[in-house]
Amino acid sequence: MTSIYDKGLEPTEANHATLSPLDFIKRTASIYPNYPAVIHGDIRRTWLETYDRCCRLASALSNKGIGKGDTVAAMLPNIPQMLECHFGVPMIGAVLNALNTRLDARTIAFMLEHGEAKALIVDREFGDVIREALAKLDNPPIVIDVDDPEYGQGSAVSDLDYEEFLRRGDPEFHWEMPDDEWQAISLCYTSGTTGNPKGVVYHHRGAYENAMGNQAVWSMGMHPVYLWTLPMFHCNGWCFPWTITGFAGTHVCLRKVDPQKIIKLISEHKVTHMSGAPIVLNSLLSVSEKEKNSFSHTVHATTAGAAPPAKVIEAIEEMGFSVTHVYGLTEVYGPVTVCAWKKEWDELPVEERASLKARQGVRYHTLAGLMVGDPQTMKPVPRDGKTVGEIFMRGNTVMKGYLKNPEATAEALRGGWFHTGDLAVCHPDGYVEIKDRLKDIIISGGENISTIEVEDALYRHPHVLEAAVVSRPDEKWGETPCAFVTLKPDAPEVTEEDIINFCRERLAKFKLPKKVVFSELPKTSTGKVQKFVLRDQAKEL
Amino acid sequence: MTSIYDKGLEPTEANHATLSPLDFIKRTASIYPNYPAVIHGDIRRTWLETYDRCCRLASALSNKGIGKGDTVAAMLPNIPQMLECHFGVPMIGAVLNALNTRLDARTIAFMLEHGEAKALIVDREFGDVIREALAKLDNPPIVIDVDDPEYGQGSAVSDLDYEEFLRRGDPEFHWEMPDDEWQAISLCYTSGTTGNPKGVVYHHRGAYENAMGNQAVWSMGMHPVYLWTLPMFHCNGWCFPWTITGFAGTHVCLRKVDPQKIIKLISEHKVTHMSGAPIVLNSLLSVSEKEKNSFSHTVHATTAGAAPPAKVIEAIEEMGFSVTHVYGLTEVYGPVTVCAWKKEWDELPVEERASLKARQGVRYHTLAGLMVGDPQTMKPVPRDGKTVGEIFMRGNTVMKGYLKNPEATAEALRGGWFHTGDLAVCHPDGYVEIKDRLKDIIISGGENISTIEVEDALYRHPHVLEAAVVSRPDEKWGETPCAFVTLKPDAPEVTEEDIINFCRERLAKFKLPKKVVFSELPKTSTGKVQKFVLRDQAKEL
Repeated sequence: MTSIYDKGLEPTEANHATLSPLDFIKRTASIYPNYPAVIHGDIRRTWLETYDRCCRLASALSNKGIGKGDTVAAMLPNIPQMLECHFGVPMIGAVLNALNTRLDARTIAFMLEHGEAKALIVDREFGDVIREALAKLDNPPIVIDVDDPEYGQGSAVSDLDYEEFLRRGDPEFHWEMPDDEWQAISLCYTSGTTGNPKGVVYHHRGAYENAMGNQAVWSMGMHPVYLWTLPMFHCNGWCFPWTITGFAGTHVCLRKVDPQKIIKLISEHKVTHMSGAPIVLNSLLSVSEKEKNSFSHTVHATTAGAAPPAKVIEAIEEMGFSVTHVYGLTEVYGPVTVCAWKKEWDELPVEERASLKARQGVRYHTLAGLMVGDPQTMKPVPRDGKTVGEIFMRGNTVMKGYLKNPEATAEALRGGWFHTGDLAVCHPDGYVEIKDRLKDIIISGGENISTIEVEDALYRHPHVLEAAVVSRPDEKWGETPCAFVTLKPDAPEVTEEDIINFCRERLAKFKLPKKVVFSELPKTSTGKVQKFVLRDQAKEL
Repeated sequence: MTSIYDKGLEPTEANHATLSPLDFIKRTASIYPNYPAVIHGDIRRTWLETYDRCCRLASALSNKGIGKGDTVAAMLPNIPQMLECHFGVPMIGAVLNALNTRLDARTIAFMLEHGEAKALIVDREFGDVIREALAKLDNPPIVIDVDDPEYGQGSAVSDLDYEEFLRRGDPEFHWEMPDDEWQAISLCYTSGTTGNPKGVVYHHRGAYENAMGNQAVWSMGMHPVYLWTLPMFHCNGWCFPWTITGFAGTHVCLRKVDPQKIIKLISEHKVTHMSGAPIVLNSLLSVSEKEKNSFSHTVHATTAGAAPPAKVIEAIEEMGFSVTHVYGLTEVYGPVTVCAWKKEWDELPVEERASLKARQGVRYHTLAGLMVGDPQTMKPVPRDGKTVGEIFMRGNTVMKGYLKNPEATAEALRGGWFHTGDLAVCHPDGYVEIKDRLKDIIISGGENISTIEVEDALYRHPHVLEAAVVSRPDEKWGETPCAFVTLKPDAPEVTEEDIINFCRERLAKFKLPKKVVFSELPKTSTGKVQKFVLRDQAKEL
């Protein structure tokens, strides 16, 4: 049935624009051209300079024949070039694939091949891994070498120097907003719980929405000074490269997490905001009293992953941090829930405050739906804080899907909801709290480790009969992999060290089991390993 | 050319949701059920109670057969019912037509007929006008009577009482988000300086965007306490009914602008934000010193329309207000530009600060394009602060169009831009400053004279309360400026010559008013000076 509102009121160029975070840098460079955009070592760049570099990058990539729907991979730490990639690459309709810099050559090679990367921008620190990965490829991408003065070591991975590449680009390059906000903006590989990593595809609309959502739930205001303690390769830095740019903030770069350096940068640049895994916050407690007292302003920190214990929250807040707990996954552009704080909770004893804060909370404005439901029936569980169900999400900040994997996409999005695989309860106040993971993923130092991938490596050992890997609580890393191994009956003596050394050849360092236990594996009647039993054992070790 | 990103990554129910401000109240009522939503006289309602009432309203309207694409008109001051209409009406896909309560019966009748209103919700204060308007209609709408205890006079306009109507509604009513974000959410008639008013149609996407945009440019944070000094019938209260709800704020209602009452409410409820025409701010200067000192916190005020003169800004800021200047039109959902303040301007002398602040500024995040261009060629004018052009806008917060008026829509949106009809310059820093309405500019001896510039000079006169300048036909010069001036109540005798001599020190000779008339200024229902009335008067002089 049509109404009077259905006629003569169609979208036109005047009243419909695609939503994209790319507009943020155009707006900010125009209004605040001389405001500080980037701080990195001795480098200081304004928004106009940064915008100029992004346009040059877009232009230079375009000159290489790269365009709409092409993948550009980046193996970079949190340096200005990585920020530039978040704008320069999608400016030409290309898709940014930020690679986890801790991965091994085999996995990187898989990603470059699966994502069909046409170009790869790489920091010299990862030269060896990249050289090894490239050697495995039939059609290697164009490689662009980044020589960061803050690293200052290693040798060129390619003849094509990033700075020279930019110089050849046109700062007046005429780029356009995407004509469809559903167009892909980035590709982020999950750690892959079963088999190969899956390529999560984000679009412009979702990136715009989550960037705005970050600002909205965190009340960031204008000109935040954001310290990059969170890897930009993690869900595109939770969309903060776009948020901070949109609000004309300053990106304070950081190659790697180093507590002393973090405190120094906070104090020197009056950092107002940062994000990171609990381990990052935890690490800050190790600095000296003098360093702790080197700044007096409040630093707002969002943290996600395993909830920080009460003692950590208390200690870190005493230092001058105000901690906000958020939660998300690669499939949803980073954080999409927030433990929205209520002023009446300020009065509670610290333990109670910490347990309230440890909850994953409520949905962002920009997430349409958050539900804890029965994994089978997908009916919501009662809001009793007890009944465990799976977390389901829906909305514009749920991924387009997995690249070249329609089956996995359909499975993940079946029934009109994204299935997170995380188990949680819903409290009477509507706040969600994670209780366990369906998929047994281990989060170590902010990195996801698939237990299945580690088990896979263990199973390759000639003397291993069976293996199961579970998480074990760790003060420093949050969690670490703990391996339970049954040796073959005829096996010679095998030590814990032998097993770990064997894995070292097959896994990235952070994925190595920190502990190996030789024992029988407890099983269900149908022969499935009872991981919850092993988790309990691991805790006791 | 298709790419790997074009296959198997289509929108589904899980990863695509329509953007609509309706979601805000659902989210806020769920997270902050017991937080204060509404304060009105002795009435206090929480977010859960307010949400309940909105659902009941939707349900009750639905019971009357009203649904998608139907118009529901409201003739209400800034009272809780008006806020409820902003959610309850679009919850069933209907379109809210908030009527300007200062209009006459003939105009109201035109709007009800043209908008095909199926229901009309009316406050008893406007009973007479509405009765007269209804008498003119062949198909009068269902009328719902609002008996506000804060008014407490008049008689019922209809047997159908709003509260009784709500009681019959279902608080558990199952409403749905629109299936298309382009769907109409509201209808706002322009004041129509020539011929009949035009019905500007807003959609859900635009309302969501401008609501988020308000928060973003104003850094409002959570839980703003918003005093309704701006009529909600003005561009849907500049989308603030949705913004304040989205950020779980408190709506402090106000039937009419009354300086003493405003100060009392600010002090009593710790109002943090308000908006209004410069005349509203101006009126606050009239309160006693004791009242001025009755609050000590900062109140953030956005103001639009004719730029407040330096002296007003200075005086109002001394009282504890922080003034942000915004600009917009009915056709663009209220404000879409903001004079984004820069901290380095804080150091400047007050006159300079005021003239910077008087500029209309830069686009919201949520407006895609803002351009000062040649009205004919639509090419941007140089950023020289001198060349006058027309302001053009484009983006998601430009109206769908004018209801049942495809010609006017096409004319207003021709060439891919909304033609504002406002004349402005673009300064070297990219900030836009309005010089005049296209039709208000005075051309004297071939020279363009900005009436705003002349008014600015008049406002600096110590005894001038208000001033308006229009063109007056002149045999020799074609047109000359004619000034209408209202003196302050306590002003001594001031002559025409005094005023002209005062201007002589501040304006080029050809810009001096040739004629000064001392009188009250005729105003529109929305507080704008009716220059066409003054022009007619000037012709007769």
